[in-house]
Amino acid sequence: MAAEPKKIIIDTDPGIDDAMAIFLALRSPEVEVIGLTTIYGNVYTTLATRNALHLLEVAGRTDIPVAEGSHVTITKGTKLRIADFVHGADGLGNQNFDPPKGKPVEQSAAAFLVEQAKLHPGKVTVVALGPLTNIALAIELDPEFCKNIGQIVLLGGAFSVNGNVNPAAEANIFGDPDAADIVFTCGADILAVGINVTHQVVLTDAERDKLIQSNGKFAQYLCKILEVYFSYHQEAYSMRGVYLHDPTALLAAVNPSLLTYTEGAVRVQTTGITRGLTLLYDKQKRFGEVTEWTDKPTVKVAVTVDAPTVVKLLMERLMES
Amino acid sequence: MAAEPKKIIIDTDPGIDDAMAIFLALRSPEVEVIGLTTIYGNVYTTLATRNALHLLEVAGRTDIPVAEGSHVTITKGTKLRIADFVHGADGLGNQNFDPPKGKPVEQSAAAFLVEQAKLHPGKVTVVALGPLTNIALAIELDPEFCKNIGQIVLLGGAFSVNGNVNPAAEANIFGDPDAADIVFTCGADILAVGINVTHQVVLTDAERDKLIQSNGKFAQYLCKILEVYFSYHQEAYSMRGVYLHDPTALLAAVNPSLLTYTEGAVRVQTTGITRGLTLLYDKQKRFGEVTEWTDKPTVKVAVTVDAPTVVKLLMERLMES
Repeated sequence: MAAEPKKIIIDTDPGIDDAMAIFLALRSPEVEVIGLTTIYGNVYTTLATRNALHLLEVAGRTDIPVAEGSHVTITKGTKLRIADFVHGADGLGNQNFDPPKGKPVEQSAAAFLVEQAKLHPGKVTVVALGPLTNIALAIELDPEFCKNIGQIVLLGGAFSVNGNVNPAAEANIFGDPDAADIVFTCGADILAVGINVTHQVVLTDAERDKLIQSNGKFAQYLCKILEVYFSYHQEAYSMRGVYLHDPTALLAAVNPSLLTYTEGAVRVQTTGITRGLTLLYDKQKRFGEVTEWTDKPTVKVAVTVDAPTVVKLLMERLMES
Repeated sequence: MAAEPKKIIIDTDPGIDDAMAIFLALRSPEVEVIGLTTIYGNVYTTLATRNALHLLEVAGRTDIPVAEGSHVTITKGTKLRIADFVHGADGLGNQNFDPPKGKPVEQSAAAFLVEQAKLHPGKVTVVALGPLTNIALAIELDPEFCKNIGQIVLLGGAFSVNGNVNPAAEANIFGDPDAADIVFTCGADILAVGINVTHQVVLTDAERDKLIQSNGKFAQYLCKILEVYFSYHQEAYSMRGVYLHDPTALLAAVNPSLLTYTEGAVRVQTTGITRGLTLLYDKQKRFGEVTEWTDKPTVKVAVTVDAPTVVKLLMERLMES
C-alpha cells in the first residue's frame, strides 16, 4: 500500500511562480492540498485571493478551500512592497483573466491554519510562499500551533548571499521581517529554502519552448503568463531564463531528499539598512557571551538542491495532459 | 635597483596577533613602518599605547613614533568591548612586562594619519588591525585624507560567514560600527580582510614548537605570549592552533598577490541584533529601487588566501635571529 499523501496548505501570493507551484502540487501524488491561504507580496492580498480562486478553477479543483490572509504586516503601519514589476499588475502576467466564480471561506487564513493543524496534529505541512504574516498570526492565535503543525516549509531568506529586494534582504522576509523572526524562533519543525538555493534552479527559454509544445493544460496556461516573468529576469539579471523559487520550495515539501540542509538558529534583522536580512548561526564557534541566537530553536536551512531533477519533475508534471 | 619600500602605518590594539604583525612588518623589507597608531579593542587605548611602545623597545626600533588614538567610539557613549579574554588582561599573554621607557608623540592618531598622508600623498598604506575609529576621525578631520592616503588595508568584517563576537559581527567592526561604515564608504582605496579569510590561516601547535626551537628573538618572545591565545582557541573553537588574523592582514599590505579579492560596495549595519554586520553588494542583480548600497564606492574584499605561504613567510621572518 502506498503511503498516505502528506496534507499540505499552501500560503501564497500568486504570482507567476506561485501558479507553477500550485499546479505542481495538484499534480503531485505525494501530497494532498487541503487548502490555500492568501497573503500580500507579489500582489495585494485581495488580488492574491482572487488569483488563488482563479487558479483552482483553471485546475478544476474548486473543492479546495481558500482562506484569505492578512492585508497588513504584523506590526501594522509598514508600507507594503508589492512586486507587480515582477509578476504583472494582475500578478499573473497581465492576462486579464475573468474574475473567479468562487469565494474564500469565512475563516481567516490564521484561523484556518490553526484549525487544520489542530484537526490533524503533526500531519499538516504549511508551504509558505510569501511573507510570513499569516503563519506568525497563527502562532499568536494559538500557542499550540507550533506543536500541532507538522512542518513549515518556507520560501524565504538569502543565506550568506545578497538579497533580491536589496543587497541585504530577500522579498518574502523583507515583506514582514517581524513576522519572519516570530516564525523562525517559534520552535516548529521549519525548513527554509532561500534564494541562495532557488537561484540554482532555472527554467530556460528552451524548456519553456518544450512546455509550449506539450498538450498539458497547465503547461499551456503557464506559458501565457510566463512572458512577463522572463522579461523581468532579463532586465534584472541579464539571463534568458527564470528562477523557480516557489516550485523548488513546493518540491522540498513533496520530496525533502531533493535538497541538502544545514541546521542552526535563524534570526531576522528588523531595523536599519539590513532590515529583512536572515542570519543563521552555524555553531562553529562557542560564544562566551549570550547572543541573540543563544537558546533559540534549531531550524533546517537548505544548502544545495538537485536542480536538474527539480526542473525535470516540474516539466513532466506540468506537461501531463 | 630594488623598489622603494612601501610606507606603512599600523593602527593597532596589541594584542597577541598584533605583536606578531608588528614584528613581521619590521622584518619585511618590502615595507617601511613609519608609525604606529593605537586604538582600543583587544585592550583599552592607554594599554594599547603602552604595549605598542613596549613592542618597539623589544624590537630595538624606538625610532618609530607611536601616536595614541581615540579612547571612545566615534559616536560617544557606546560601551567598549575589550577582548582581554582572548589576549590576557595585559593584552600580551599575562606576562607582566616592565613598562616601556618611551612615550607617544604629542599628536593624536588621527592628526598623525592626516599629516603623514599629506606629507607623502598616495604613498602611505594604513594597516588597520583594530576598530576603525582613528581612520574615521582622520576622514572627519581632513576631507582630503581619503585622496591622500595610498591604501587602507583593514582587518575587519565577516563576509558571508558568522562573526566572532556573535553570529553577525566580527570584533573590529563590532567595536565601532559607525566608524567602519564611514571608512567603507569614504572613497579611499580599501582592501578588507575579513575572518572569512583569516580563519583559513592557522598557526598549529607543531609550528609553535618550531618557533620555540629557533634562535629568533621575535620567535622566542612570541612563544611566551602565545599560550593564552592558544587556550582561547581551544575553548572557543575546539582547535589546537590559532588564527593569524593580524599577520594575514599585514601580509596583504606587504604582498597583495597572496590573496584574491572581489569588489563591491560594503555597508555596515549599525543597529539591532546584527549590529556590526558587514554586507558586500556583489552587483549580480540590478535593483530597480535605490538601495543603501547604490552609488557607494567600490572596495576590495579578500576572498581566498594562499595560507601555506602566509604561514611560511611568518615563520621564516620571525625565526631570523
